Amino acid sequence: MMGITEPTLLLDTRKCKANIRAMVAKARRNGARLRPHFKTHQSHQIGRWFREEGIDAITVSSLRMASYFAQDGWKDITVAFPVNLPEIDTIKRLAKDITLNLTTLDADTTRRLGEQVESDVHLFIKVDLGNRRTGIPPSDTAAIDAVLAAIDVYPLLHFKGFLSHAGHSYQARSKEEVMAIHTASVAALLPLRARYGARYPNMMLAPGDTPTCSVAEDFSQMDEMRPGNFVFHDLMQCQIWGCEKERIAAVMACPVVAKHADRHEIILYGGGVHFSKDFLELEGLGRSHGELVRLERDGWRSHTPECHLTKLSQEHGTLRVDAETFQRIQIGDVLGILPVHSCMTAHAMRGYLSVEGETIDHMNGERSSIASIRHQ
Amino acid sequence: MMGITEPTLLLDTRKCKANIRAMVAKARRNGARLRPHFKTHQSHQIGRWFREEGIDAITVSSLRMASYFAQDGWKDITVAFPVNLPEIDTIKRLAKDITLNLTTLDADTTRRLGEQVESDVHLFIKVDLGNRRTGIPPSDTAAIDAVLAAIDVYPLLHFKGFLSHAGHSYQARSKEEVMAIHTASVAALLPLRARYGARYPNMMLAPGDTPTCSVAEDFSQMDEMRPGNFVFHDLMQCQIWGCEKERIAAVMACPVVAKHADRHEIILYGGGVHFSKDFLELEGLGRSHGELVRLERDGWRSHTPECHLTKLSQEHGTLRVDAETFQRIQIGDVLGILPVHSCMTAHAMRGYLSVEGETIDHMNGERSSIASIRHQ
Repeated sequence: MMGITEPTLLLDTRKCKANIRAMVAKARRNGARLRPHFKTHQSHQIGRWFREEGIDAITVSSLRMASYFAQDGWKDITVAFPVNLPEIDTIKRLAKDITLNLTTLDADTTRRLGEQVESDVHLFIKVDLGNRRTGIPPSDTAAIDAVLAAIDVYPLLHFKGFLSHAGHSYQARSKEEVMAIHTASVAALLPLRARYGARYPNMMLAPGDTPTCSVAEDFSQMDEMRPGNFVFHDLMQCQIWGCEKERIAAVMACPVVAKHADRHEIILYGGGVHFSKDFLELEGLGRSHGELVRLERDGWRSHTPECHLTKLSQEHGTLRVDAETFQRIQIGDVLGILPVHSCMTAHAMRGYLSVEGETIDHMNGERSSIASIRHQ
Repeated sequence: MMGITEPTLLLDTRKCKANIRAMVAKARRNGARLRPHFKTHQSHQIGRWFREEGIDAITVSSLRMASYFAQDGWKDITVAFPVNLPEIDTIKRLAKDITLNLTTLDADTTRRLGEQVESDVHLFIKVDLGNRRTGIPPSDTAAIDAVLAAIDVYPLLHFKGFLSHAGHSYQARSKEEVMAIHTASVAALLPLRARYGARYPNMMLAPGDTPTCSVAEDFSQMDEMRPGNFVFHDLMQCQIWGCEKERIAAVMACPVVAKHADRHEIILYGGGVHFSKDFLELEGLGRSHGELVRLERDGWRSHTPECHLTKLSQEHGTLRVDAETFQRIQIGDVLGILPVHSCMTAHAMRGYLSVEGETIDHMNGERSSIASIRHQ
């Protein structure tokens, strides 16, 4: 892996495409539509790999991101984030060009939206299945009825269904715990179809988070699946449900800039501005901001023994290693580090380099270092 | 504060310039050179405010940042990060154009640098005063002597002095604790002058971290001061040494997108990709990712009672408030949030909007939202 001079986010395109194909196949087996969340990769090019597998509808987390993907020809986009009224001009512009699905949980906001839109806008009602970030509890049918009543007043607003994100699955630490959340989520969503299905025969149930979509097999009663992180996976998925580390498709490449023999610490050029500050708590180790892998010509493989990035400041990362690894690593080497949270790392890095040496776009602009790298 | 549609980093230019003037004055009183760390703001325009106060030498944390500021006419730049050999081409290019000061802590790296440079390069030796991130302990004179011997072999390498960053001051929780670190730092640095001053009469002692540079008054035995964060300050500085919140010069402006009456939580458009994931642990509250302020036409003022951002995901922030505040805040409002760690927030936001309505550059590119905003 030559030619890398600065922290760089490497992408194993084969692993990434395999992750995509596996999730597409699972959705197909279930007769559900995969509407992948593109906030993880934020890339036109990676989006096209989904299109090649037959995907034609996507999820994003901001109107800015919706605009970016509309530019690349996506015509059916769900913004899985509560309607942000100050961006009404962007909403109007997008609704003219594409099938725009927004997310609401509030009757008054829905009315204010209805009064301003000039083209069809489709609305999911966000339900809270226990994550307690945002959404209406599915049992609060009075609040749901109020939003539906607001939608029905405006001919340009169309109720599309119920959207959920069981983000509390990120607290799980086994497949069994993830399965329990999936089972409870389905059980909470189905009564909504029983109650509202006759009135809205096309209404959809649209859950989506990578842990449940990775672990559970049965989505046959769901209409859409909206996971995002699975496109890369990361150490957090490994901790939550035992995702095999071999499936992680993105790795940070960081130059070694110092060594401290007294404590077997390697200092990397790679800090919080590159990885983001997310961390895992690992038993017996404390915080991990990433795990060492061996970079090779065509990708990477696991490193034995496990070595972790234990501290991050703005530009520095501290990697703690065993004595033998310490001897082998030299200043000027470039090391591979599996990310803890690939969505945040990709957002921070704003571009990718494939292991084949191609640069891959990110919404927030390629880093000039990546643009100028040639794989040798 | 009208016209804001997305998370935006607001800058109170008066507070920012007052922070700059106060630190310039302190350095001047001490007969020390202020070589401010520009990694906090990463902005040509803010850099020029320093220049207006007579500053002509700066610190940065990467060669990329050195190049950015060299483009704006800065001619004396210290990269306070260990020499990154893979970037030798950038080093050579910069060394041709400016007084380039690099940081080393290793004899072998120094030799490899010496063998490749084609213009004068000045070297600080990084000493570790107890932060245990990187650097040579000042007591390890054998390691220091080895680096000096390596420098002296190469006519283009010039020893400039000892650089330190007492980053462990970030663990302090009172002015007294910060003062103790400053006193110990000075006590650890002075013997280096005693030992090496005769051989290198122009050698400098160059410490720098915002807590000690803010709290301590006596830098008369130091040659340079290299703090960075003080240009904005943040809640972390308030927690460490009691920085007055009124001195914080940057605040995030975030639209309200949802309200949850059952738990008095306000959901903001503003998440980890905007604030970064840094947090404080506050007694009785738990994690804080930021504190609510009242936005006004020309800036902001404190909010009573204190309300904190308690959770962040990729794009969502959760603000916990009292009952009265909950009633007052409406969906669609734009709220101000003081950042926990302004360096990381500025890096994530990649641009500023002054309270006077002007956009201010950041190295990593202006956000188009900022470029298009007009202050009304």
